[in-house]
This record gives sequence, C-alpha cells and structure tokens, in this order.
Amino acid sequence: MKKADVVIVGGNVAGPVAGITVRRHYKDASILLIRKEKRVMVVCGIPYIFGTVGSPDKNIIPDALLSNNGIDFIVDEASSVDRAAKTLTTSGGETVGYEKLILAIGSLPLRPPIPGIELENVFLVWKDADYLAGMQQVLGKAKEIVVIGGGFIGAEMADECKKIGDVNVTMVEILPHCLLLAVDEEFCILAENKLAERGIKIITNNGVRAILGDGKVNSVELQDGEKLKADAVIVGIGAVPNTELAKKMDLKIGEQRGIWVDEYMRTSDEHIFACGDCAEKFSFFTKKPSGLRLASIATIEARIAGANVFELKRKNIGVIGVFSTAFGDFALSTSGLTEKAAREAGFDISIGEAQAPDKHPASMPNAKDLKIKLIFDKKTAKLIGGEISGGVTTGEMANIIAAAIQNEMTADQVTTFQMGTHPALTSSPIIYPIVNAAEQALFKLR
Amino acid sequence: MKKADVVIVGGNVAGPVAGITVRRHYKDASILLIRKEKRVMVVCGIPYIFGTVGSPDKNIIPDALLSNNGIDFIVDEASSVDRAAKTLTTSGGETVGYEKLILAIGSLPLRPPIPGIELENVFLVWKDADYLAGMQQVLGKAKEIVVIGGGFIGAEMADECKKIGDVNVTMVEILPHCLLLAVDEEFCILAENKLAERGIKIITNNGVRAILGDGKVNSVELQDGEKLKADAVIVGIGAVPNTELAKKMDLKIGEQRGIWVDEYMRTSDEHIFACGDCAEKFSFFTKKPSGLRLASIATIEARIAGANVFELKRKNIGVIGVFSTAFGDFALSTSGLTEKAAREAGFDISIGEAQAPDKHPASMPNAKDLKIKLIFDKKTAKLIGGEISGGVTTGEMANIIAAAIQNEMTADQVTTFQMGTHPALTSSPIIYPIVNAAEQALFKLR
Repeated sequence: MKKADVVIVGGNVAGPVAGITVRRHYKDASILLIRKEKRVMVVCGIPYIFGTVGSPDKNIIPDALLSNNGIDFIVDEASSVDRAAKTLTTSGGETVGYEKLILAIGSLPLRPPIPGIELENVFLVWKDADYLAGMQQVLGKAKEIVVIGGGFIGAEMADECKKIGDVNVTMVEILPHCLLLAVDEEFCILAENKLAERGIKIITNNGVRAILGDGKVNSVELQDGEKLKADAVIVGIGAVPNTELAKKMDLKIGEQRGIWVDEYMRTSDEHIFACGDCAEKFSFFTKKPSGLRLASIATIEARIAGANVFELKRKNIGVIGVFSTAFGDFALSTSGLTEKAAREAGFDISIGEAQAPDKHPASMPNAKDLKIKLIFDKKTAKLIGGEISGGVTTGEMANIIAAAIQNEMTADQVTTFQMGTHPALTSSPIIYPIVNAAEQALFKLR
Repeated sequence: MKKADVVIVGGNVAGPVAGITVRRHYKDASILLIRKEKRVMVVCGIPYIFGTVGSPDKNIIPDALLSNNGIDFIVDEASSVDRAAKTLTTSGGETVGYEKLILAIGSLPLRPPIPGIELENVFLVWKDADYLAGMQQVLGKAKEIVVIGGGFIGAEMADECKKIGDVNVTMVEILPHCLLLAVDEEFCILAENKLAERGIKIITNNGVRAILGDGKVNSVELQDGEKLKADAVIVGIGAVPNTELAKKMDLKIGEQRGIWVDEYMRTSDEHIFACGDCAEKFSFFTKKPSGLRLASIATIEARIAGANVFELKRKNIGVIGVFSTAFGDFALSTSGLTEKAAREAGFDISIGEAQAPDKHPASMPNAKDLKIKLIFDKKTAKLIGGEISGGVTTGEMANIIAAAIQNEMTADQVTTFQMGTHPALTSSPIIYPIVNAAEQALFKLR
C-alpha cells in the first residue's frame, strides 16, 4: 500500500497550491496528489482557448509545478475514503494511506433542467482539455452560437466566440442585466454597451424555455416564445461544489452546499481539510455562508489549509470576493460588496464616486477612462466594497481596493493613502480616483 | 485690501489639492490661490512633452480645477508676508489678508557648480511652460544631447529625447548605476539594459568636470577626461525645497532644507501650513527627516494640510515613498525601503523574490514578465519595501505593496492577501508574485 504524510485530492487550482504550501511549511513531509485530469487546464483561461489563446494546449498548468516542489502525483480518481483506517481507494483500484488528507475537488458546472440540454453541441464548461478541444472544433464551424447565462463566464465565452470569425453570438440572461450578481447596474450597462459594440447580441430579462433540435441542437426557445437559431449552445450559469466524495465519507456539508470547514479549513474530520470550490465559504463582511467561488479564493484557502495540516498556523478571515473581467481594452473589476449586496446585507452605506484618465496628462497615448465607486459602512466608516471599470490596470487597482478592505481602512485613511503615480502608468495624483472617491464618501458619512 | 479665509501660495501640485481639500472640508471658506505661472504644467508629465505628448500645451492642468471648486486665483508672486498683521504682499504690489496661509511653493531644480553650466542650450528642468517650449525648440534641432543625472527624471528625459528622432542621447551618472537611489542594483541593471536597447548611451561611475562651449554649449568633459559632443545639455540631478519666502518670514527650516512642519503640516507659525516639495518630510519607517520629494507625496500632504486649516483632523504618518518610471513597455516601481536603504537604516531584513507573467496563461498576448522583491523587517515581520519591474500594471502593483506597507501587514498576512486575478489583467493566482515573494520571505524570518 502506498502511503504519504499528506494526500491531496484534486489537481486543479487549490490542489497544487495546497501541495506547494505543505512543502514550504513542512519540508520533510511526503506529499501525494491524486487527480483525474491527464493535463490540467488554467481554469480562468478556459474562455480564452476559443479566441485569444487559440487552443487548450496553450492553457496547461505544467506538471513541473508539482515535481519542482517534491509533490508526487498519480492520475486516477479518488472513489472512497476509509476515515477510520485513514486510507483512500481510487477507481483504478489503488489504496493509499494518509496522515492528513486535503480535499480540493473543485466544482461542477451547473446543469439547469432545461428540456433539450442533452442535445449534441450543447456544452457545459467542463475543465477538461479533451472535452474543450472537441467543443472548440464544433464552435469553429458554428454560424450561430447561443450562450445561456450573462455572468462573467458567459460574457467572456460570448466575447471569445465572436473572435472565432464569421459567427453570430447571442447571450441570454434571465436577470435585467448581464453581470448583475457581480457589479451594480451602472457598471453592467457599461459592460453591455462594450459587448454590443463588439458584436455580441444581448437578450436580458428572458430565460430559456427549451433547447430544440433533432439529435443536434438547431435552436433555442426563450421564455417569451422567441426562437434563436443555434448550431452550438454554451451553458455558463455557474458551478456547484463537488461534494460527492465528501458525502460518501459522511463529512458535514454546509448551507451553501460546500464541504463544511472551520476557520482553519478543517472539515468535520480534524485530519481532513478542504479548500477551493468544493469547500463551504463565509463572507468577510457578514460572516454568513457565501456562494462565491473563484480561483483566487481557492488559492488563498489552499495556502491556509496547506500551512495548517500539521499545526494550526493560519485562520480564514472569510471571502472578500475580488474579481475582474475584460473585453478587448475594456476591463471591469469588483472587490467586496456592491451597493446592492451591501444594502441587502443590511449595511447603512455611504458611496463615493470618481472618474479619471488612467494616465496623465490625458493626452498620453492609450489613456482610458477609469470609473470608480467605493462603498463604505456608515457605522464604522470602513471600506466594504469597490467597483472599477477602465483599461488593463483595472485588475490590479481592484487589488488595491481589496488590500484597503482587508485592512479595514476607513474613508479618511483611504483619502490619505500613499499611492505612487506615473504619467504612463496611473492617473494623476491630483485626481487619483480611489482617493477622490473616498473623500467624496467621507462627507456623506456625517 | 483683498482678504480670504485661506490664502494658498503655489499653483502646482500641492496648491490646488490643498485648495480643493479646504473647499471639501470648509464649504463656506473663501479661498484665494496665488501662483506665478500663467499656465500650470502637469509636473510628472514634463519629460513626456519632448517625445510622447509632443508639446507643453498638451500637458496643462486646467484652471477649471480651481474655478469648479470655488477657488479664486491670481497670477502673481508672493514676495513677503507680515505674520503679525496676517497679510501677504505680492511683487505685483497687491496686499492680501489671510486667516490661514498655506505655503505650497514647491522646489527648484538643483543647479550643480559645474563650470559652464551658464552656457546657452544647457537646461535645468524648470516647471514653466514657456521655458519648456523654448527648450523643446533647441532639443528638436539637436544631434547630440547629453543628460547629466541618471535618476528617474534624467532617465525619462533621455528616453523621451531619443524619440525626437535622429539624435544621439548620452546619460551621465556619477554613481555605479542609474536609478541607484531609487531601486536596488538588480533592478537598475534591468532598466539600464532597457534604456541601452532603446538607443541611449549610458555612462556610469563618471561625473561631469565641465560643460564647454563658446556662448553655446558644444561639449561636456567628464571626470575621467572623456569629452562628449553636445548641442544641448539637460541637467536632472534633483531638486531642492523652495524656501526663500519662508526664510524671509523667519519660519523654521528643517534638516533636509524644507520648511519645518509638525505632523499636522503646521509650520512654526500655527496659522501657516506648508505642504509639498517645499515642506520638510520624515520617513514612515525611521521617523527621521527624509529627502524624498514626489508629486504624489505633495498631494497627500495637501490633503492633510487642507483638512487641518481650521480644525486638526488629519495626521501625517511620514513618507513611504512610492514611485514608478517607464521606458516603452518596460516599467519599474518602488514602494518604501529598498534592500540597501533598509540595511542603511539599521533594519535586520528578510527578502522574498518572485517572478511571474503579468497575464495567465503566459500564452496570452502581450504578457510581460513581472519581477518582484519584497523586504520585511525581521523583528516585526512587517513589510517595509517592495520593488517591481514589469509592464503597464507595475505602477498599480506598487500601490498594492504601498497599501500593505501603510497597513503594516506581516509576511504571513501578505501571503494570504485576498487578491483577485484575471487572465488578461494579472498573474495567475497560483503564482501571484506579491504573495509568493511574501511566503518565501516568511521562512527566512525564522
């Protein structure tokens, strides 16, 4: 029987990072990672396979990431765990003993109960290179692509499909706006305008009643009766934690359907940790269960779980939720709570807004307009959220806001934040928009 | 006699920001700004006039910034202040009464005692549109330009001059490397290689003995005897606080030759504040006087001074020092202490280094390599400095590091920093280099 001090199940984002973290903190531990994928996709890169990057082969996490860190791995599927014996059995028939087990088994694309979803050329977004290569072949020949779901994944898939060439791409969203669960309405509208400008047809306030076809899909019928021609359909409406193994193991499951974990990332079995999409999360702001699932969160949880396997070193402070998307030279980011989410969570809030070119003077080449909205908790004056649209620096600006949120900076502290600036790289210090939005919010706090 | 509740002297960076801040905090105050420039330059944009932007006219801070905020202004020079009478007299003969006075009179380019510095076509970098327009005319015709000083300003001037066209540009630096006061040696070398690749000739370890010519400059003689042909010479070796008026007023002057101020930005006269390049600064890290002078620091000090004029609301925590430069698609930033500065200040330090592409997967178009070095104080485990080279996101990444420094984050906290990531905008979360560098440093702390 194989044995390892730490056995990790899952080869995607959280698994390797947990392994690397174990190695850093416990240099003599033997680490074995079990994953079902022969080749591992860069998950966030998946939409870009279809246009920008061009192939699943160019979107692979190299196995050297494991071997360079002294992590053994086998390609197989964990099928059961005997918690009393501390052994794991794979569908390949192997039994592996563990001292500590880390579950990093990710999520599964949500499969809505739409009639016709089983038709050929209807795709969920699976994180599997061969599946995606097949999907790419079909999309490459399609003239009419319908994307169901207007969240970040749906919008990115739609934008990338449009790059394939002579193809009509329609995105269908059941809510009044695309991206509405991620950003406030005014930012949704900016993104929708940009997508429309790039040739994506957007239908909102309308769900899908059925996917139609004869073996292969040929159209999509909407709730209002409209029919859209479709050679291919992509369903991107979200993901659910992969908890099948955990349920078989009788581990506790959380309210948001993830594997329950404590603040040290321990499951209900203290020798078993969980991290990433499969693990239950809680909000940094409300401490209540959160449905957010992001690759970045997976890495943070993996850095907590990995450090804690033999000695509790790190605590999870709950998810802030920082994420971005980009369509061409337009980018959109969000950190923490939106106005809508903050109000729904019961916060009394103060909002500051600012705009500025992302270079200075504005006559610098390729300057883009930044639009920023910051949300502060009136009771404590602390920053609890921020949204930005702009150019390529938007993603790292969201991380400045994230750092301010994580450190519980108040509006006054953000106003005197010591940022650096440069004509070719940032807004002018005179109108640096994070600072200006904070000062604006400050006066509404009183 | 004119009277205003708040009189501000200086129209450049700190002056307008102080005025806007006064307006935000004291909405009924009358504010009068006195400046000597008809048109105000975007100071950090000055090097870009000569190449990228093309003209001083495209590098102007619009006066609407003042009028939109209810700030009156006159173009005139403050020549004396009667502190007892609380009046200011201008060289135009006007007398103005004030309740509170803010000095934001900036700095002057350092004029080294080099023989021949008075020759025609030898330029200091004055923040004056007409002067710069004249300078541009000369540079436009030059075939041989010598830049004295290889700091940020010198390097940016050299790079922009090279864009003018068929011209040889040589930069002379007395230290062993360019930018050595700003970043550690390995980053200096990256920048030097980039500048050399862009056609700049760099001479280091060599000072200027004399500037030669007959009325007009024709050559520069170096300390080792080498002579460089020169139709034009730019001297960019730094700046000194403009304290002439303050000295006449008998205000206290600090060790670093700036107008002394307390942590509320009050001078030795409690009705008079100073901010920006003219004001004395102290280090966030050592609390000792600091010679750093940056536009971004000027705006922060102006936001403190402006808020404090009628009621002490904000404290200065000392300068962190966050700044960036860029040559083409290469950018370089620094936040806080370099390794060298930290050791000189007596810190026992732990260093973490990391590299990663600034997009993910690395096959995304225009991905650039990020190189990051973080410096932690061993005693407290707190982050005290960071340097980055990379592409256009480098400047805002330096601001993430600045936020971490300002909030006194430890290596462990930076390792679990909740950043957001996106293929087109940032590194992969798996190898996000700020986080990875922090975790590397963590193990050297023990």
